[in-house]
Amino acid sequence: MISIPRLLQRSARLNPEAVATRYNGRSRHWPQILDRVASFAGALERLQLGEAERVAILSLNSDNYFEAIFAVPWAGYCIVPLNTRWAVAENNYALTDSGTRVLLFDDAFRAQAEQLKNEVASLEHVIYMGDGETPNWAESYESLIANNQAIAPSTRNGADMAGIFYTGGTTGFPKGVMQSHQAIWASAIGGIGCMEIASNDSYLHAAPMFHMADFACSMMTVLAGASHVFVAGFEPALVLNIIAEEKISHVLMVPAMIKMALAHENAATADLSSLQRILYGASPMPAALLTHAMDLWPTVGFIQAYGQTELAPLVTMLSTEDHRRGGEILKSAGKPISVSEIKLLNDEGNEVELGKQGEVVVRGPHAMIGYWNKPEETASALQDGWVFTGDAGIFDKEGYLYIVDRVKDMVVTGGENVFTTEVENALISHAAVQDVAVIGVPHEEWGEAVHGIVILAAGAAVTEQELIEHCRSAIAGYKCPKTVEFRDQPMPLSGAGKVLKTELRKPHWEGRERQVN
Amino acid sequence: MISIPRLLQRSARLNPEAVATRYNGRSRHWPQILDRVASFAGALERLQLGEAERVAILSLNSDNYFEAIFAVPWAGYCIVPLNTRWAVAENNYALTDSGTRVLLFDDAFRAQAEQLKNEVASLEHVIYMGDGETPNWAESYESLIANNQAIAPSTRNGADMAGIFYTGGTTGFPKGVMQSHQAIWASAIGGIGCMEIASNDSYLHAAPMFHMADFACSMMTVLAGASHVFVAGFEPALVLNIIAEEKISHVLMVPAMIKMALAHENAATADLSSLQRILYGASPMPAALLTHAMDLWPTVGFIQAYGQTELAPLVTMLSTEDHRRGGEILKSAGKPISVSEIKLLNDEGNEVELGKQGEVVVRGPHAMIGYWNKPEETASALQDGWVFTGDAGIFDKEGYLYIVDRVKDMVVTGGENVFTTEVENALISHAAVQDVAVIGVPHEEWGEAVHGIVILAAGAAVTEQELIEHCRSAIAGYKCPKTVEFRDQPMPLSGAGKVLKTELRKPHWEGRERQVN
Repeated sequence: MISIPRLLQRSARLNPEAVATRYNGRSRHWPQILDRVASFAGALERLQLGEAERVAILSLNSDNYFEAIFAVPWAGYCIVPLNTRWAVAENNYALTDSGTRVLLFDDAFRAQAEQLKNEVASLEHVIYMGDGETPNWAESYESLIANNQAIAPSTRNGADMAGIFYTGGTTGFPKGVMQSHQAIWASAIGGIGCMEIASNDSYLHAAPMFHMADFACSMMTVLAGASHVFVAGFEPALVLNIIAEEKISHVLMVPAMIKMALAHENAATADLSSLQRILYGASPMPAALLTHAMDLWPTVGFIQAYGQTELAPLVTMLSTEDHRRGGEILKSAGKPISVSEIKLLNDEGNEVELGKQGEVVVRGPHAMIGYWNKPEETASALQDGWVFTGDAGIFDKEGYLYIVDRVKDMVVTGGENVFTTEVENALISHAAVQDVAVIGVPHEEWGEAVHGIVILAAGAAVTEQELIEHCRSAIAGYKCPKTVEFRDQPMPLSGAGKVLKTELRKPHWEGRERQVN
Repeated sequence: MISIPRLLQRSARLNPEAVATRYNGRSRHWPQILDRVASFAGALERLQLGEAERVAILSLNSDNYFEAIFAVPWAGYCIVPLNTRWAVAENNYALTDSGTRVLLFDDAFRAQAEQLKNEVASLEHVIYMGDGETPNWAESYESLIANNQAIAPSTRNGADMAGIFYTGGTTGFPKGVMQSHQAIWASAIGGIGCMEIASNDSYLHAAPMFHMADFACSMMTVLAGASHVFVAGFEPALVLNIIAEEKISHVLMVPAMIKMALAHENAATADLSSLQRILYGASPMPAALLTHAMDLWPTVGFIQAYGQTELAPLVTMLSTEDHRRGGEILKSAGKPISVSEIKLLNDEGNEVELGKQGEVVVRGPHAMIGYWNKPEETASALQDGWVFTGDAGIFDKEGYLYIVDRVKDMVVTGGENVFTTEVENALISHAAVQDVAVIGVPHEEWGEAVHGIVILAAGAAVTEQELIEHCRSAIAGYKCPKTVEFRDQPMPLSGAGKVLKTELRKPHWEGRERQVN
């Protein structure tokens, strides 16, 4: 039987004398981690919440976060990792929707936790897991560990729910993806072959731990019995430094993080000799950015992961070997991981011929149980064991999957379908552009017009017209943005780290209805 | 959810235009395999046996065997792969014990199948899957495929029983190991990282397919979506030839097969340029034999697998990288595969300290359901989810497991424990020795004396005294065999390919009781 506590027990046995976690100058060994997890689980058990009750975490990355991920299922409860980028209202929604009764938080979220404690009716306990003074309205994580006995792990396992992971979704309210012990495990075990991580390696948690991408890396690292190093949040200088200092072998970075790291003055001189693998994913990787990274850091192996929260989250991976082969396949999302079965369906629900485009539909032991409290959305996203991703893809003859777009993110302009990723790739290849999103905006003549939203790199300057001209050299005229706006805020992101285009579209479409196929 | 039919469906999708199986000059593509499997499952379904009824296979390796492995669970039944080395009486026992109602057989087992049909009360249907004329007392596999409609796969999955695998065991009657869909899958997915097999590779079924080692390789090859090539039985010249002709990339061989292949006149000249990996296991690998193979075939990567049928069967693997590192770890069984959790227990049932010897006890999703119809044996071998292997092992500080002996195979002579593998390694390092087994025989003074049983290499000659002298140069005097006998028959093997030492001991211990710790 498969359970998340068992994964931790197994990891502790693989390398019993090794350091398990390193954070902020402190190290914990495996026996200590096991004891702390089992004791905190003892504290949670004493709350007598009842089986499968929800315990949420609102915290930056830390060794305590790592422990909590295991302590909650150890006590027989389900974790709800909250999005650290969300506003109070959104986290309030997630806590209320999931009926969460316990909230763990750290220093960065003192104010938000206090407000949530007052506003969320279901919340009964708030537990402070930071490194400072425990507020008088909260319980102390460390005291609870110190004052409770270690307990044996809950017997919940396999298909039992282990957690609810909120995903912003691209439409409407956030959806809580229910994931089982087995699904979380299956995604990790399906990905570990590509990850090539072993017990003497060290993984750096640089991406947010609430995100299912880093969550899957937590599990892969545990499967390998390797050690975990944490930074509270991503900062290019800090991450480059810590890779050198802690001899990090594996790290996950989203493309925006890679771009920031490459733009840092230490990018070329940082000591990355220990770094074997950079896993990237969660948003499309511009070709120019990938080439730049591979050129600047030639000793590092790159891996691309494609997936979504509903698949815990891995669907395909493009291996380091594939990256070294180069060429067209660098644009691909790779091949199905060993637990993914993928078919591509046309609008009539039939499988497309090889080489044709269809919606990516995935089945396997990593498929979600469903959306919490959302039977209709579940029925439409999960049919007969198959998860409908909403992404459009094409398989080549060698079995590589190419994601062409979010099915519903296509811009239909003058009857032509424009894949927004293609336009985004053209825009971001301009040196001045740090981040980009392309949407369709209403147009009297064409129905929709292609519209670019651009965040400039620090200190860079470029005009709207220059960017449009730049695109003309790369893509067909009808695909080029008709208009470009400059944005100084980061893009709004879903829980899964995807740009929330619904949010970006809102100001343009107010009072109108956008037709979606 | 995980099921064996789904594995096949997934494999067929990975590489839809590729050849799935090649045997005896014929090739079948994935769509054809799926259709044949689903149609034969349709034929089996029409027998209306009821859920989880047993269907046995008694056949040499072939593409049809491969199809049957999937067609039986596709129809909702359980497979019982019979040991092709067993006599009628032993297979009669397995069929009767499992209450098998359908038997598939090929040309090599016409006579045995006819006899079993007459003798085994539970048998209702016998189906001929060879390439000649169907006997008039049997049904034809090909006709059943041609005359039945393809059906949708059974929904049996996960923890449901998928098959019963008979293991000779080292004591008493054969035991039927009940394995679930999940366990078979878990063992394969845990091993595939080391196997490094991809969709454009070809695996050669050179070891018998009834054996769980090749069975696991069938599943790993299916997970990879690679193609399957079959030889009916192992023959050194044939296997060396077919590796070159069919551009085989992966093969499993037990040490005895490797020794035979190395001894063949074509060993040095055969074209093994396509061969990436030789997986070996099932019995201990003598150090000299491994070194010889690695020296002669330097472009081939070697992998060792250690396991047993009760764990479907993989427990640990020693990777190609480990082999290339060389040194002491070549004597190790490697590290736990990503689904194995291993502890070493002393006689009191407590975990031993690092570096100390204990019984290897394993837990994970690949653990058996239990022994069919044997509640007492199940209770002793499977406790609280942990499988007691009966093997003794030691972990080193790096996490490598060393199997020192079958716990009950130790020879206790004059109060000293002698690990038989150590003596066997000393004997087989002599050029004249083809195969060896060491046992304890009764001795008035010492309780037991170390006794070697040796099969000489073809054309070789050596005296008992020369062999004992040879051992003295390698191991301590008290460990050296006091006596050596020469044997011209192959060693008696269990279903799992292990030497049945109980059989070898019998003539020496008749009328006496051997004390086992």
